[in-house]
Amino acid sequence: MNWFEQPCRLPSVEFFEQAQAHQSNLTKPPGSLGQLEQVACQLSAMQERQSPSLDRIHISIFAADHGIAKQGVSAFPQSVTLQMISNFLAGGAAISVLAQQMQAELEVVNCGCNGEISDAIGLINKPIAKGTADFSIQPAMAEDELLLALQLGHEAADRAHQQNSDLFIGGEMGIANTSSATALAASQLGLPVADLVGPGTGVDAQQLQHKREVIDRAIARYDLATPLQRLQTFGGFEIAALCGAYIRAAQIGIPVLVDGFISSTAALMAVSINSSVRPWLIFSHAGAEPGHQVVLRALDASPLLSIGMRLGEGSGAAVVVSLLRSAVELHNSMATFADAGVDGKAS
Amino acid sequence: MNWFEQPCRLPSVEFFEQAQAHQSNLTKPPGSLGQLEQVACQLSAMQERQSPSLDRIHISIFAADHGIAKQGVSAFPQSVTLQMISNFLAGGAAISVLAQQMQAELEVVNCGCNGEISDAIGLINKPIAKGTADFSIQPAMAEDELLLALQLGHEAADRAHQQNSDLFIGGEMGIANTSSATALAASQLGLPVADLVGPGTGVDAQQLQHKREVIDRAIARYDLATPLQRLQTFGGFEIAALCGAYIRAAQIGIPVLVDGFISSTAALMAVSINSSVRPWLIFSHAGAEPGHQVVLRALDASPLLSIGMRLGEGSGAAVVVSLLRSAVELHNSMATFADAGVDGKAS
Repeated sequence: MNWFEQPCRLPSVEFFEQAQAHQSNLTKPPGSLGQLEQVACQLSAMQERQSPSLDRIHISIFAADHGIAKQGVSAFPQSVTLQMISNFLAGGAAISVLAQQMQAELEVVNCGCNGEISDAIGLINKPIAKGTADFSIQPAMAEDELLLALQLGHEAADRAHQQNSDLFIGGEMGIANTSSATALAASQLGLPVADLVGPGTGVDAQQLQHKREVIDRAIARYDLATPLQRLQTFGGFEIAALCGAYIRAAQIGIPVLVDGFISSTAALMAVSINSSVRPWLIFSHAGAEPGHQVVLRALDASPLLSIGMRLGEGSGAAVVVSLLRSAVELHNSMATFADAGVDGKAS
Repeated sequence: MNWFEQPCRLPSVEFFEQAQAHQSNLTKPPGSLGQLEQVACQLSAMQERQSPSLDRIHISIFAADHGIAKQGVSAFPQSVTLQMISNFLAGGAAISVLAQQMQAELEVVNCGCNGEISDAIGLINKPIAKGTADFSIQPAMAEDELLLALQLGHEAADRAHQQNSDLFIGGEMGIANTSSATALAASQLGLPVADLVGPGTGVDAQQLQHKREVIDRAIARYDLATPLQRLQTFGGFEIAALCGAYIRAAQIGIPVLVDGFISSTAALMAVSINSSVRPWLIFSHAGAEPGHQVVLRALDASPLLSIGMRLGEGSGAAVVVSLLRSAVELHNSMATFADAGVDGKAS
């Protein structure tokens, strides 16, 4: 059995039930904090703590280039992937600003960009290749490349564990990776590409039709039976790495906050490879990319936020951290009816 | 002309357009931060600052009792209103925990509870009466009581101004106040009570039918022509105070973050009394109470969060502050394409 097929831990039923009972004693009408109550109980169960904590947050951004970019499916040139790595590290990108604001650990994993980048603090520089192959012509990866990409995610989750992280966020960067994710999700869910494809970073209507046709034709080339085959065929390195990170985090018991369309597709693949990952996934937001909604429904996810974000990088998840921190603070610090001398419900 | 009918300030069109232009230069696909971009631009325009700020946040919780509680329309006894004031001040309530977490100024205004409460730090103790009259029998307030309640809100907004607050949040506490808000909104919007009425703090199906009938019959008693008449008739003191606070905040140019059903109904009344209030209102969340959705639609509001909260106290708004702070931090601190050396959209 491969490491990624080994069963994950189970969140504690005992802690979950204790947390629910605690919520019902707090000075508020039962259920009146909505999803904040549920997520506090989930975190208590995952962390096996009466008072869950979100002090230490680990963010790994996986970056890679995509052969499919040659087909003109993105609004931005491929050079942007590498340039954005520098921007992440220099503190200028959205995720950098948010990580700083929430005092999170941020690292960037170069899984395989098309170009050189110098070693730097905060950069894990382990390129598998100079980008994936163009999946409209041949499989994005060789089998050993897939295993290496999954392993990059495994290592990131292990680093989070070594830092005693309370929460793992995976982000991604890779020009053309909505094409990769769309192909993956359509293939995995057996849905038409038209149900999922969207503008990504911002292609126009004509480019969108071209993007759909490229992905449609590519899917028709292959006869794929397993989620691993799909991941190898449609890529990218960063999506496989995210997938590996989610699986490993669930195996070692770190709660995962999932970001946008690409990350949610990686989560779909992770759950398809290993269904015991699912209880460890908290879905942060429903983004603007049409495929995101489809993937969230397939995962039976109830994301906390829906404000039309479509940036990736882990940015939607990072924005939602503050909601989780409010949930935890309310759970840990509100008075009970008994403590506060407040009357309960009239009989 | 009464003070509350005098025109409000106008958010700066110039700052809004500058902020929009700035957003389009930041290292992200245009529009990819969704509503966070819009709200950052709104705050820039309201504060007339290139770099909007949310360091200083003022929360006023208006508390009052309701004569309509005698009709058995709430799941909790009236004693809870006063008990919760103590809980707000002692730090045990949801809004207290959230205010502490976000380092906000929190004050409680006793607008008229049914019982005595000792003076305390953080308490503005100015009861108009020992609760409103039962509006199923007679108008909730006399005209001079309405003016006093509006004035309590005026004073709260002025205190926020004296503290150089960047944002005003109004909260409320008052057992039975969803009945008051439902009557107000149904009357103001000319809608059936059945479209708005909900469980409030948690009445069951039978009690809900009773609540609807009580409100239905009460509305039928009166022939009301103006929003001020409606506010006087259905109350409560805390809703009128919220209404006065929103109007005054808009007149002196403090952005307002609106909370749940009760607060949104107060906002509806404020806009109905003085339409120039509207540009100053940011709507935080869409709550679980059915009337909240109706009122938000009537105000053409696009709240940022929808996670089934229904607590009031200002708690939903307080949770959303962190989203606004992320929006502002991204606006103020992200790199531009030029600064970061990142290529723009492919032509």
